[in-house]
Amino acid sequence: MENITFHHTLPIQLRFSDFDSLGHVNNTVYLSYYDLGKTAYFSTLFPDWMMKETAVMVVHVDVDFFSQVFPHENVAVETAITELGNKSIHLLQRLISLDTQEVKCVCHTVMVYYNLKERTSQDIPQEWIDAICRFEGRDVRRK
Amino acid sequence: MENITFHHTLPIQLRFSDFDSLGHVNNTVYLSYYDLGKTAYFSTLFPDWMMKETAVMVVHVDVDFFSQVFPHENVAVETAITELGNKSIHLLQRLISLDTQEVKCVCHTVMVYYNLKERTSQDIPQEWIDAICRFEGRDVRRK
Amino acid sequence: MENITFHHTLPIQLRFSDFDSLGHVNNTVYLSYYDLGKTAYFSTLFPDWMMKETAVMVVHVDVDFFSQVFPHENVAVETAITELGNKSIHLLQRLISLDTQEVKCVCHTVMVYYNLKERTSQDIPQEWIDAICRFEGRDVRRK
Amino acid sequence: MENITFHHTLPIQLRFSDFDSLGHVNNTVYLSYYDLGKTAYFSTLFPDWMMKETAVMVVHVDVDFFSQVFPHENVAVETAITELGNKSIHLLQRLISLDTQEVKCVCHTVMVYYNLKERTSQDIPQEWIDAICRFEGRDVRRK
Repeated sequence: MENITFHHTLPIQLRFSDFDSLGHVNNTVYLSYYDLGKTAYFSTLFPDWMMKETAVMVVHVDVDFFSQVFPHENVAVETAITELGNKSIHLLQRLISLDTQEVKCVCHTVMVYYNLKERTSQDIPQEWIDAICRFEGRDVRRK
Repeated sequence: MENITFHHTLPIQLRFSDFDSLGHVNNTVYLSYYDLGKTAYFSTLFPDWMMKETAVMVVHVDVDFFSQVFPHENVAVETAITELGNKSIHLLQRLISLDTQEVKCVCHTVMVYYNLKERTSQDIPQEWIDAICRFEGRDVRRK
Repeated sequence: MENITFHHTLPIQLRFSDFDSLGHVNNTVYLSYYDLGKTAYFSTLFPDWMMKETAVMVVHVDVDFFSQVFPHENVAVETAITELGNKSIHLLQRLISLDTQEVKCVCHTVMVYYNLKERTSQDIPQEWIDAICRFEGRDVRRK
Repeated sequence: MENITFHHTLPIQLRFSDFDSLGHVNNTVYLSYYDLGKTAYFSTLFPDWMMKETAVMVVHVDVDFFSQVFPHENVAVETAITELGNKSIHLLQRLISLDTQEVKCVCHTVMVYYNLKERTSQDIPQEWIDAICRFEGRDVRRK
């Protein structure tokens, strides 16, 4: 995997209904954990980011499941933005065990900055680019 | 239970993630089945009911779980409106097995007709009252 | 409502997918919050309670929705056991705002102590009764 | 995309709680639709496939979201197995509109045939290979 330092970690509260009849977290539930991670990330940087006019819309996810999650485990989602295009935001996220630091799952997500009224993608605002590069500690704009 | 004839039945498509680690449908999932039933009921009577200005809002549910639901069972939700107040709608719903007709779960729900803009309940429109009484085959207005 | 002191409070991590198209937490999601509360309650008292042979099974819930939950609110579930029958456990739970202390929703639940192998309810073990009465600070056995 | 003929199509029953506050199906919900599709696929070919000893375990998903899903749309999941390794099963799935035939989302999934007792992957049984190749109408074993 890319040599990424994660500056954002969110512990996840597992729900009993997350576990399926095999006794582990069902694969369909992981995306809601990653969703929690990225929502918290954006809320940290942009407290008012859930605007009425714009949103970030998921267009692609790519998930590797390495290890199952069982009850009583303590897990967290790590989130980093790895690249910004003009309209696209690339995230790398990991679900890790807080007990053993094991990486249980890795997710790459591509989102677009989206105008809800015009129903079309639009350029990421400059203050987002600045805040994200500052938070990540490096220039993540696409070369 | 009340001597009710159900005129609305909706088969439910069970999802693998509905089942928890005890191998049966998790109790938290039943409400989403009843939700499917009542959404279909209202859509049958009022195709445009998901208006922007008004909604029906659940204020009370009362659920008796009689029998577990296991994989490969065929189940359906039966829905009847049993009483209309000025602003309130009382539903009786049952989750039944389509294989054995067993009643697995019974739910009473109270909803209010709600104005989303003014954030307050409001009187049920007369055309709703008429359509519901016609569909139920009796006068369900509160005496 | 009953004059109950709650000795168990669990903050809930809201998920973006908990919110429906009306912008508030969907009513079908509340039960998973109460589930979190009671799972944490039992885990506090009985760290090994998720045994293979027995379980607690929900047979009845009764929920009053007083106030909607919107994004960015901080909420918690309060849980108390109010009565123990021979085989039944009665819970009172509240969903409260941690910001305003407002009570948003109240839930009464009846569970039975259940033998998974024999598929039948069974008497609550004495050590459960003792631990629960001690935790609640009073004798909650049915008179 | 690959030039695949789909021999398995499952209409999906949308739930009101699938829709998020943007009014469309939340991205975290799509995986449960694909899960429905592949569960139905396996149940068609292997009525007893939910054995106690073995399971199929998702190890990788790759999802492209092309178009949003709104209420009242009729959608279905198409499923094809595109490749069988010794222990791995590769699926291609599409979420399509039954109204317009539009492809809304495409998912590639890799699963492994898994021994639940020994907690390790194992070779896919020959009768699975035969039945899958027959159903797909071609030899899907990895060359």
